[in-house]
Amino acid sequence: MLPSVRKLVVVGIGLIGGSFAAALRQSGSCEEFIGIVRNEQATKDAVNHGVVDRAYTSLKSVAHELDERDVIFIAVPTLSVAKVLADIKNCVSDRVTITDGASVKGSVEKAAKEIFGEVPPQFVLGHPIAGSEKSGVYAANADLYANHRVILTPLANTCPEHLARVKQLWEDIGAEVLSMSVAEHDEVLAATSHLPHVIAYSLVDTLAHDILNPNIFKYAAGGFRDFTRIASSDPEMWHDIMRANRKAILSSIDLFVNNLSNLREAISEENSDYLLDVFRRSKEARDNYVNSLPARAKSKE
Amino acid sequence: MLPSVRKLVVVGIGLIGGSFAAALRQSGSCEEFIGIVRNEQATKDAVNHGVVDRAYTSLKSVAHELDERDVIFIAVPTLSVAKVLADIKNCVSDRVTITDGASVKGSVEKAAKEIFGEVPPQFVLGHPIAGSEKSGVYAANADLYANHRVILTPLANTCPEHLARVKQLWEDIGAEVLSMSVAEHDEVLAATSHLPHVIAYSLVDTLAHDILNPNIFKYAAGGFRDFTRIASSDPEMWHDIMRANRKAILSSIDLFVNNLSNLREAISEENSDYLLDVFRRSKEARDNYVNSLPARAKSKE
Repeated sequence: MLPSVRKLVVVGIGLIGGSFAAALRQSGSCEEFIGIVRNEQATKDAVNHGVVDRAYTSLKSVAHELDERDVIFIAVPTLSVAKVLADIKNCVSDRVTITDGASVKGSVEKAAKEIFGEVPPQFVLGHPIAGSEKSGVYAANADLYANHRVILTPLANTCPEHLARVKQLWEDIGAEVLSMSVAEHDEVLAATSHLPHVIAYSLVDTLAHDILNPNIFKYAAGGFRDFTRIASSDPEMWHDIMRANRKAILSSIDLFVNNLSNLREAISEENSDYLLDVFRRSKEARDNYVNSLPARAKSKE
Repeated sequence: MLPSVRKLVVVGIGLIGGSFAAALRQSGSCEEFIGIVRNEQATKDAVNHGVVDRAYTSLKSVAHELDERDVIFIAVPTLSVAKVLADIKNCVSDRVTITDGASVKGSVEKAAKEIFGEVPPQFVLGHPIAGSEKSGVYAANADLYANHRVILTPLANTCPEHLARVKQLWEDIGAEVLSMSVAEHDEVLAATSHLPHVIAYSLVDTLAHDILNPNIFKYAAGGFRDFTRIASSDPEMWHDIMRANRKAILSSIDLFVNNLSNLREAISEENSDYLLDVFRRSKEARDNYVNSLPARAKSKE
């Protein structure tokens, strides 16, 4: 494939940014890979790990080189996107394509409006529905996005050429691109991702601190390992998501607690019909979900 | 190995019973394998699948053959154990070793007391901490218990010879045997297994029915598949567990909901310190738990 992108600048070389660069290197979509990271040590790690060709601690070091056919991918924790956008405003040409991978889109839209007055037409908001409980540059994985979905949330003024370029990059690395509104994205993700993380963190915390048995984890079975896997996720990243998508997450928690409290009542009253109904339709919904997955993901069952 | 057991009778040839028989066949611990199942079709399935040598639909068909050096393993859903014990009372010699694999021990102890007056000294209550969201004879797996824990809950009058025989069988197939009281077992399992199942079923049910987006599962990421795996578990089995361990499960739900409501408040108030504290200590507890697992289980991370 002839590279469609000249320079790809990835701001934040962790799991999300590092995997994006690694995958695009494999697909041959970009001529050069540049990383923007936190400190000097991280510049060395990013280059040594082979995900970028060179790395800097400031976007300003490379901004003057960028023009059309160049792309900036912002892959920092959600609440840090604003700071990157402020840097971009001062030094990046409006011909450069900008996109991001933050887990919440409403907070990014709001930050862009505050900084630029309106969200710049060159900025395509996006979110890959892929991840791992692992984090950092050494978790970068060229296959992370293959057969996964990416949601783009273009706005009325988003420039079609920039949108098409971002879509093409995700498709080059095997992802399926979907489009929806910022609000719908944040509600859907609150339910399917943010709520499960809240629950998993809270369950592990309950067992570790509220149950008066110091060896409680010793008796946990295999199902517990899978159920709590997401409680090993990066705390700072999830702190940001909780604040950035606060309202939608609170609504999801309330729906869940209401459902759980009905189930608790059925257990308390030994209401067999209710229990069997919930368990059967949940099993059916979950089995259908797994059967709808691409073969690669399903085979892990 | 010379077989220590002459005839092993497994009542209920599903995942738990079938895997026990398959593993003991592999270890050479028993001379003959006999299954007691629900109907004629199941007798054929159990023999065809090779987990037992012969199968019947009633324990009475084989009870007269049994004496010391024979073992009955009761592997039916928790609330059906009482019916099996009633059958045993009428036709099985008190020299036969009896054990079970039910997920709740308090309800089994109570049923045995009601049927026999006291729990018979030949009856060793037990529970393997292993399972799968899969069920039925075709889920039987000779490796299910290797490197897993089995909890035995002997009573004051349990006969040491029968206890030693049951312990030996589990160790023959690679399990680690622990001992604790019936009450402690039921509290620990309520927290580490029954509560997570309640939560997983309730979460999937919330998404499938309370969230007003018919495509909600389409946007679920990989973490969601693992998190909800246990919601694909057998509904009838889990119905029984909810009723059999009602009190301990209700207490666990209350502790969890209390913790979750504190976390909700912290999200609502954007209390960063609280959020980071919970997420960090949960990640630490969960990472420690995974690191404590045997190598085989850990490698799935």
